[in-house]
Amino acid sequence: MSKPGTLYGVGVGPGDPDLLTLKAVKVIAQAPVIAYPAAAGTDSLARAIAAPHIPAGKTEIAIVTPMVPGRFPANDVYDDYARDIAGHLAAGRDVAILCEGDPFLYGSFMYLFLRLAEDYPTRVVPGVSSLAACAAVAGAPLVSRNQVLTVIPGPLDEADLEARLGNSEAAAIMKVGRHLPKIRAVIEKLGRLDRAQYVERATMADQKVMPLVDAPDTAPYFSMILVRSPEDVETTEPQT
Amino acid sequence: MSKPGTLYGVGVGPGDPDLLTLKAVKVIAQAPVIAYPAAAGTDSLARAIAAPHIPAGKTEIAIVTPMVPGRFPANDVYDDYARDIAGHLAAGRDVAILCEGDPFLYGSFMYLFLRLAEDYPTRVVPGVSSLAACAAVAGAPLVSRNQVLTVIPGPLDEADLEARLGNSEAAAIMKVGRHLPKIRAVIEKLGRLDRAQYVERATMADQKVMPLVDAPDTAPYFSMILVRSPEDVETTEPQT
Repeated sequence: MSKPGTLYGVGVGPGDPDLLTLKAVKVIAQAPVIAYPAAAGTDSLARAIAAPHIPAGKTEIAIVTPMVPGRFPANDVYDDYARDIAGHLAAGRDVAILCEGDPFLYGSFMYLFLRLAEDYPTRVVPGVSSLAACAAVAGAPLVSRNQVLTVIPGPLDEADLEARLGNSEAAAIMKVGRHLPKIRAVIEKLGRLDRAQYVERATMADQKVMPLVDAPDTAPYFSMILVRSPEDVETTEPQT
Repeated sequence: MSKPGTLYGVGVGPGDPDLLTLKAVKVIAQAPVIAYPAAAGTDSLARAIAAPHIPAGKTEIAIVTPMVPGRFPANDVYDDYARDIAGHLAAGRDVAILCEGDPFLYGSFMYLFLRLAEDYPTRVVPGVSSLAACAAVAGAPLVSRNQVLTVIPGPLDEADLEARLGNSEAAAIMKVGRHLPKIRAVIEKLGRLDRAQYVERATMADQKVMPLVDAPDTAPYFSMILVRSPEDVETTEPQT
């Protein structure tokens, strides 16, 4: 039996193709098989981000998953793709799975990782997360010194969201999408609306950054709300 | 008066020089002035990470700050460096400030940003955070689906640490250093020691990854503890 190929989870960053790492570009260049998630009926965002760095002649696998709000793709869909990818790995071919942002911070890469990493050599190439990208384009430090940062998924229910946010200094709320009105109501209730920013498609050509109070009621899935600490850290004076 | 230069905060990633982004490499290549933090008496880690990508002939500014455990560098140190950097910007020269990991997630870049961004064009190039790097080398997804992730600085006192961790699903504890025994005691008290990993110098040649229970009592500043959610997310079945 030949030496198996390596499974790579490759973070391609938040959107700007220049925010791929040198390592991501190298792995994509050498792997004969490239796979990427593509919600049913849409183009793959991960592939679009990496497109300038994908040489011609690759075997490509679009991992097409049904997008049902509030639900996750069924296990059997991933079982099928894992079997397909395992075929390439067993035949000695490296497979690079492109992941928006970073593979292990909320990435769908985990579904294939959990099915394949025990049987094949696996490497994760970390990427620039949407969190770092949103902080960068929002124009102010998100978190500093000894502040606690809480990363909260927007689909949480209102009570849970309120408990988590109420207990946070700085917070980033991900996967905003259709949950925007609920999230905004909670932030307003907590009196933190003046410290909240809305960021959509950070680092892409059509990015939007605005105070949360001005954000539209319907946001795309790839949007984020940043809530700064109630107090700015303006100096370097020691804190206890 | 000539057009002012641009101030760039450039994330150089966690340690592997291949984890710079293409954009970081481009900005470093074109900026005539490169600045980087260097704790007094030590080499600059940020410069060491970016070294293969720094062309000869740059004006370099080492931002030397006193390292006093539990304290932050004094304001007047940053005032002086900001004045020096402002001189270059006013003369039309771009200045790239190299930042370990990402500039706006716990970076010392904020001290210069707060002093200069109002007066000069400023751009932040996000980088691969130490959080993403530690998750990548730890060999399992850190956080997924609708889990909350809490990022906690290790210097917090024991009671605060316990309150924050007790309230977390997945957590990452940064700036571990000399606080390791205190942090480990809290994690043990909370019964989460079997879900905790220690990561030191992630993605560097001498990186270390081990169960927290096996970690040494004295850790370097650039180390992190990852605490996974009490329950694995093994399937894609919908959750409420």
